[in-house]
Amino acid sequence: MLLAASGDLPVARFFLVLAAILIAGKLAGEAFERLGQPPVLGELLAGILLGRGLLGLIPVAHDDPLTPVFTLLADAGVAVLLFEIGLEMDLKEMRRVGGGATAVALVGVALPFILGVLYDRFALPESLLEPGSDRMAVSVYIGAALTATSVGITARVLADLHRMRSTEARLILGAAVIDDVLGLVILGVVSGFVAGSVVTIVGVGESLAVAFGFLIVAVLVGVRLAPQVLEVVEHMRGRGVFVTVAVGSLLAMGAVAGLAGSASIIGAFATGLVFAGTKQRHRIAEQMRPVSDVFTPIFFLYIGATVDLSAWNPFDPRGRVTLLVGGALTAIAIIGKLASGWAVPWRRFNRWAVGLGMMPRGEVGLIFAQIGLGTGLLSPALFSAILLMVIVTTLLAPPLLTVAFRHVPAAAA
Amino acid sequence: MLLAASGDLPVARFFLVLAAILIAGKLAGEAFERLGQPPVLGELLAGILLGRGLLGLIPVAHDDPLTPVFTLLADAGVAVLLFEIGLEMDLKEMRRVGGGATAVALVGVALPFILGVLYDRFALPESLLEPGSDRMAVSVYIGAALTATSVGITARVLADLHRMRSTEARLILGAAVIDDVLGLVILGVVSGFVAGSVVTIVGVGESLAVAFGFLIVAVLVGVRLAPQVLEVVEHMRGRGVFVTVAVGSLLAMGAVAGLAGSASIIGAFATGLVFAGTKQRHRIAEQMRPVSDVFTPIFFLYIGATVDLSAWNPFDPRGRVTLLVGGALTAIAIIGKLASGWAVPWRRFNRWAVGLGMMPRGEVGLIFAQIGLGTGLLSPALFSAILLMVIVTTLLAPPLLTVAFRHVPAAAA
Repeated sequence: MLLAASGDLPVARFFLVLAAILIAGKLAGEAFERLGQPPVLGELLAGILLGRGLLGLIPVAHDDPLTPVFTLLADAGVAVLLFEIGLEMDLKEMRRVGGGATAVALVGVALPFILGVLYDRFALPESLLEPGSDRMAVSVYIGAALTATSVGITARVLADLHRMRSTEARLILGAAVIDDVLGLVILGVVSGFVAGSVVTIVGVGESLAVAFGFLIVAVLVGVRLAPQVLEVVEHMRGRGVFVTVAVGSLLAMGAVAGLAGSASIIGAFATGLVFAGTKQRHRIAEQMRPVSDVFTPIFFLYIGATVDLSAWNPFDPRGRVTLLVGGALTAIAIIGKLASGWAVPWRRFNRWAVGLGMMPRGEVGLIFAQIGLGTGLLSPALFSAILLMVIVTTLLAPPLLTVAFRHVPAAAA
Repeated sequence: MLLAASGDLPVARFFLVLAAILIAGKLAGEAFERLGQPPVLGELLAGILLGRGLLGLIPVAHDDPLTPVFTLLADAGVAVLLFEIGLEMDLKEMRRVGGGATAVALVGVALPFILGVLYDRFALPESLLEPGSDRMAVSVYIGAALTATSVGITARVLADLHRMRSTEARLILGAAVIDDVLGLVILGVVSGFVAGSVVTIVGVGESLAVAFGFLIVAVLVGVRLAPQVLEVVEHMRGRGVFVTVAVGSLLAMGAVAGLAGSASIIGAFATGLVFAGTKQRHRIAEQMRPVSDVFTPIFFLYIGATVDLSAWNPFDPRGRVTLLVGGALTAIAIIGKLASGWAVPWRRFNRWAVGLGMMPRGEVGLIFAQIGLGTGLLSPALFSAILLMVIVTTLLAPPLLTVAFRHVPAAAA
């Protein structure tokens, strides 16, 4: 019907799939929230249910005319999500958290990365590699996917436990934020890798410089420009001026980051960081919330939709290999982050609580896995193994954190 | 970058075009608002500037991979808009406005429709017809496009003039609302027409029954179901539950309406009408506003983008014909609506003010024109002529209403 009648586009199908994504995502998220689990896991499972794995409702096939539409909407969804994460951050606060959090973050990024690269070099079954892909790129990729920490999930659990003001919570959150920035820079690097291209140390160095450089230049320029632009916007009479400027800016900066050779989400994240320092920040956050509620579930359900459940089939030899690799990656992911609790020997606090707080990979881990699949670097089996690691670390964090914080005096809260 | 790297989709271009649509639309809307004109006209002109007519930034070509993406987003945008219009309506209030408004609405719909059909039958140049299109369908189409009244634009002007509580304003708004419902039903009928299909009186009757039937059944069922669903939603813990349910419902109902042989916007409108009667209505409206701020401009700019400016070129013989036909349609549009001011002889009020208040076609007229082009029934030249009528009636309304209301005592306010 309507506009689309011209090209005979399936408008009704587009509307139905989008409605199913929103409703199923919300119901699954709600169910997980009531079970004390992160809603994002519910959305992921809803995607698996609606996607390739089971119902086949969400289009993922290359020859489906709706696949590019949902892929682009998912891209917009993750950009909106990263903008929101940036908007929640306080650059000044981050400077104050200081040494302890930085040490936790660096250990929590470096150790899983190194362990991941070593695992890939010496123990990864050859059968899980995409033919023709560069081993160096795959190594960096696996290492990078292990480094993520989801601030959102940890912050939520800490708030539920009423331990937000404890030393442990400050260390975790400070480190998780630094971790996010490092992770995004690494993402800017790895998203430049494409299957078949040769990755060198020099190339990685260049990509690192581009990603870091873009972030720094964008934030430095943005911090000067944004207050003046928003001052003008403040005097506009139309409705929804802040949400329009916010969405327009994050998309434009995302496009610029992509064209500059970095990742589009780096641009969206930088825009959020810049707006976080303005006095209109709260109004922007308020108007952005419903837009994010509509766009971000598309991203998480779309990731779920691309999961091929048969990859985890323990009765299939290939499925067993994927499960074994996924298990090994999960062990590395847990050990690497737990160790970060011991990164600050000069202070006294519950080291288990900090280590466990850094563990959930959540949405950041999902973004890594998805990019790896998208660029063709990760085989579907390796993607499934990484996904297993993301899901298990995220599922384990809330219950284990609850146990660990029993030994943190509530008086510190 | 990102997800889309898999299919080599131009994510950066998608982000840039969407950003340009949002920013340019907001700036143009603001400029028009400051000139005392409806912002929607600014968005339309911004679309002409960014579209086929001039810069060529917004994709409209059939072989452009981004065209279907923006077409579907524009469809979602107009569905969100119609949901919001439905949400603003008060079924009880509509019943109270009673006879006067109904008389104004019926004359304002019937007269332009009949004059439009007569013009098409006896005076429309053959050269403007799409080869092979059914004359009956084209007649109904031209008539239908002339019937619309934009509640939004008129309500806005009345509010600016501080005349919202005058007898004239009540008559205009009541009639405009009834007019919108009639217009949408007609739209449900005409959107079923496709170039080359033969339209009969029986066929039109059937379509009318389907469109009216769908609206009535959807509202009757919805009014019983919605309070119970929203009662459950109210107890959900996740964030953005109302916006998710609202967008999910309007899309699902839009899809059902489309599959039932009506127009998808009828389904979205019915959903808005249903939610308008619930006690959660204000929270739904509040959460929907930013979503609408992002989606609806896509629709208006997309319409502008499809305009071929050379169709209005007075130095081209075909352009002159289009301008002449556009002028004739504009005259019919003005006369037909002005006459509605005299539809209620038994009451005393400023008849010119009421007639002029019914005149702007605004977004409703644009929807009609776009559907006609989309189904291939209207030739690009005839589409351009109708667009001229929509733009001129909408541009003339605010200044003429201001003059007419000088003679309405402000005491009545």
